Amino acid sequence: MDARTARTRARLRASVLALADRTPLAELTVAEVCADADVVRDTFYRHASDVQALLADALGAEIDAHIAELGSRAGMEAAERALLEHVAERARVYRGAMRPTLAPAVRATLEDEIRRGLREWIRLHPEIDAPGAVDDFDREIAVAYAAGGTVAAIELWLRVDGEDVASATRAILAATPEWWLR
Amino acid sequence: MDARTARTRARLRASVLALADRTPLAELTVAEVCADADVVRDTFYRHASDVQALLADALGAEIDAHIAELGSRAGMEAAERALLEHVAERARVYRGAMRPTLAPAVRATLEDEIRRGLREWIRLHPEIDAPGAVDDFDREIAVAYAAGGTVAAIELWLRVDGEDVASATRAILAATPEWWLR
Repeated sequence: MDARTARTRARLRASVLALADRTPLAELTVAEVCADADVVRDTFYRHASDVQALLADALGAEIDAHIAELGSRAGMEAAERALLEHVAERARVYRGAMRPTLAPAVRATLEDEIRRGLREWIRLHPEIDAPGAVDDFDREIAVAYAAGGTVAAIELWLRVDGEDVASATRAILAATPEWWLR
Repeated sequence: MDARTARTRARLRASVLALADRTPLAELTVAEVCADADVVRDTFYRHASDVQALLADALGAEIDAHIAELGSRAGMEAAERALLEHVAERARVYRGAMRPTLAPAVRATLEDEIRRGLREWIRLHPEIDAPGAVDDFDREIAVAYAAGGTVAAIELWLRVDGEDVASATRAILAATPEWWLR
């Protein structure tokens, strides 16, 4: 990506995050995002297929930045807390993307980011393994289960609170198979 | 619900399941379901807001029937296997509802059914508790995590296979926090 395209993308991401902070996602139009980011429609569609996809991309970039700061050697608890701090900071955006469950692209991005983190965790800790797992299918199921479980827990947390990161971290780690936490 | 309404609902459910077995959900129209079930549009909308909602309702009713057959005292493994047998029987319907993740109403119905089963499981086995859980929020998070994790695992299974119930049951139980299985 050249520097100009990168700057435009950064502007589009900042605009969609700012707008989605005060307007429910379903009501946000491509025209509003274009006006705020000062780009034309053609430019928008070179970056995203619709507003939901652009918001998912912007949130994914923030999660990447949060996780990168941690360093790959940080423990599961620190990674979980960093993820939930991101969600708490963007709680209004995430809540605005629920109807009543998270918009599919936003949910998929969250699940993808968590799956990526868990695969990296397994790569760094090859001694970690589900007790009953016998092959790669079992391991991929374990990763999918933990990622989908974490997103469902985050959805519930957003519905009832979305602020108390410490108690959500404790509750989600308690709900996680303990062999992940070794 | 009077007997006539119940018969109409049964016909609508049978029609949407038959049609969704051979046509991707996104391509199915209310008109096609009405023609197959021999009802008028107004009648359709008294039962469901759209085709996706009707399909979710029809699949939910099948899961209810599967679970009811089991009896409430059956173990977690039998319940998991019964759920996966239902998914395998309806694998073409579920796959047709993925783009690429499950349509939100279908996913929500699956999650709701599993959450309901897990709450009942906890009610029957009050000795079951997440090791780190301290309050009802933690317990609801544990239920949401297990239900969301199971649905995400089912999505992966549908993508790669969706037929081998025995290995999917083993893999999903291995991915489940072991305190659920006591």
